[in-house]
Amino acid sequence: MTAFSFSVTHADGRARRGRMTTAHGDVETPAFMPVGTQGAVKGLTHRDLESIGAAILLSNTYHLYLRPGADLIARRGGLHAFIGWQKPILTDSGGYQVFSMAARRKVDEEGAHFRSHLDGSAHLLTPESAADIQAQLGSDVAMVLDECLAHPAEEAAARQSMARTLRWACRGRDRFLALRDGLVPGVRVTNPGQAQFGIVQGSVFPHLREESARETVAIGFEAYAIGGLSVGEPSEVMYDMVDRTTVCLPEDRPRYLMGAGTPEDLVEAVARGVDLFDCVLPTRNARNGQLFTSQGRLNIKNARYAEDDRPPDPACGCYTCRTASRAYLRHLYMAGEINSSTLNTLHNLHFYLDTLGRIRDAIVFGRFESFRREFQQSLSRQLHDQ
Amino acid sequence: MTAFSFSVTHADGRARRGRMTTAHGDVETPAFMPVGTQGAVKGLTHRDLESIGAAILLSNTYHLYLRPGADLIARRGGLHAFIGWQKPILTDSGGYQVFSMAARRKVDEEGAHFRSHLDGSAHLLTPESAADIQAQLGSDVAMVLDECLAHPAEEAAARQSMARTLRWACRGRDRFLALRDGLVPGVRVTNPGQAQFGIVQGSVFPHLREESARETVAIGFEAYAIGGLSVGEPSEVMYDMVDRTTVCLPEDRPRYLMGAGTPEDLVEAVARGVDLFDCVLPTRNARNGQLFTSQGRLNIKNARYAEDDRPPDPACGCYTCRTASRAYLRHLYMAGEINSSTLNTLHNLHFYLDTLGRIRDAIVFGRFESFRREFQQSLSRQLHDQ
Repeated sequence: MTAFSFSVTHADGRARRGRMTTAHGDVETPAFMPVGTQGAVKGLTHRDLESIGAAILLSNTYHLYLRPGADLIARRGGLHAFIGWQKPILTDSGGYQVFSMAARRKVDEEGAHFRSHLDGSAHLLTPESAADIQAQLGSDVAMVLDECLAHPAEEAAARQSMARTLRWACRGRDRFLALRDGLVPGVRVTNPGQAQFGIVQGSVFPHLREESARETVAIGFEAYAIGGLSVGEPSEVMYDMVDRTTVCLPEDRPRYLMGAGTPEDLVEAVARGVDLFDCVLPTRNARNGQLFTSQGRLNIKNARYAEDDRPPDPACGCYTCRTASRAYLRHLYMAGEINSSTLNTLHNLHFYLDTLGRIRDAIVFGRFESFRREFQQSLSRQLHDQ
Repeated sequence: MTAFSFSVTHADGRARRGRMTTAHGDVETPAFMPVGTQGAVKGLTHRDLESIGAAILLSNTYHLYLRPGADLIARRGGLHAFIGWQKPILTDSGGYQVFSMAARRKVDEEGAHFRSHLDGSAHLLTPESAADIQAQLGSDVAMVLDECLAHPAEEAAARQSMARTLRWACRGRDRFLALRDGLVPGVRVTNPGQAQFGIVQGSVFPHLREESARETVAIGFEAYAIGGLSVGEPSEVMYDMVDRTTVCLPEDRPRYLMGAGTPEDLVEAVARGVDLFDCVLPTRNARNGQLFTSQGRLNIKNARYAEDDRPPDPACGCYTCRTASRAYLRHLYMAGEINSSTLNTLHNLHFYLDTLGRIRDAIVFGRFESFRREFQQSLSRQLHDQ
């Protein structure tokens, strides 16, 4: 029995306010999941994350499988025990990283053959092994293995890939259910309450998206994700694909837009019925000195900030904005201090999580459309007054 | 008028418990000053530092002078305002880094000519400019410029260097007093309550140390530091030099052993009447995976810790030991995660600060000698039982 459940508590147009219950607690949705690739969000301690209200973490199966290894983590009692994070965790299937990071990858019907980017060792990731590894990790939400298509793709290739993803989804779901029922000897299931999400593919072709959604729902997962977007297509295309996909997904299950996106993307996707997000933008850009603010983006390395005593975002209440000036943050960045990553990441994630919090409030009060309008206006302002 | 004062509140043998008052608050002594080279302790936010009870920070004049520049910091209102740290700060004179880091340095009676390790630009650090820069930084304690002799040194060279250090001390003190009286136009004094410490040199020659101490005290500073130790000489030689120097220093002023040392060094120096310490060991070693524990040192990268679910130091109450296992810390180190530096640094500094806290308590209760004995026994235990 999975511990997973979901209920929509408020709706405002197509935007939904809900609560996702997992084996490690509840997540208020819409929610953003900070990315802790290797079992840690780069630059932040868990208490830093908790201080900004992070309710769920995403971690990468590919990285953890290669180092320190899923067996080792299972022997520790699973990922929660290993990293000391007691709130919900979602793990991806490992597929995306295999397609984007691994060396000499070759995909056939069986799965993805690849070599580790760390030591060149040979591995095979299949729908079954992706489920096994995530069972060992014991995340609260496991993702089914899908095929990640390069963008742009021809329609024929997109159709073939979508069809393979569906076949893999059947195999992955079968394995997940077998693991849950204790029918896979030799794999230590560290979280009996784990749920599994299916993934809709279909590139930028509306009818493929719709077919993929229908067929994935027919297989039956605890919830559904939209994959293969935020990979270089124009925003309007992404929004359109989200739009056409969410209407094909059940109302009573959370919808997760994988790998998106900018703050604007999040608001637009919520407007189209999405409940969950993850993205490396706030964390990766923080390490490169780019801060997301209520007035738009701010590149802290810019010389104009060398003597600017204002906080990065005067409207922000995060620890960084309460205690550090742009001048100090620029100095830390230029000096290569570790703190630069920490303070910038803390701010950016706070901005994302706070934005989601404001979205949730707006939905409750039936004000989402006016929030959306004000948010886009605010972000489109030029930074010349900063 | 300096805001600086010091009083010994308890004595236990030659170990002293005291209180140092500065323009930014009190420091209970004996105290350890974490090193924030560029205005930040590598890997820790200020709130992390406060969470482990750091009462005073050391920052490096050489680094801040080159980047972002003392003028810029003075325009921000001084170092406290610039970095957002409102507790006491001690700055070194810049001399040690010029001698250890700068390129093409040449020392003459005027001062130290050198080129920046950052961009090769030419600079001259004199006793006067060292005082000026620190007046701009506005630290609570400024250090006088001394000549840092390479170890080992011949007695003749040590005598010459010690004599030059005394001449520089006169010039540095004169400049400090002129700055305090507002007699140096063009230099913005950002902390009118700044104090200045003199520095005893003399290499490993007891009679030179004694002469240096006597003459430095004769010049008259708010307090006195012991420089030129912990530079490669055997521990016993360092302890002997400390021993012979502290007896030549006034009882009513704090004594600061610069750049030392191991936890054992701190306890031994306190036993000889030292009140203040700084050292990069806890922070630098943390970043290299070495943890100081109540049972000795622990190298977290060691494969034996890969599946060790215990905290680094079961006797420690720091955030790292409360929440992270050796297995997780080893994973973070091996994976090159920023968090590895943060968690290890937090633990090591906690260990140092906690050790000083226990030293202070022991002195109050007249138990310093038994504390010292137990501490050395505990540290000398083998790690094979870890």
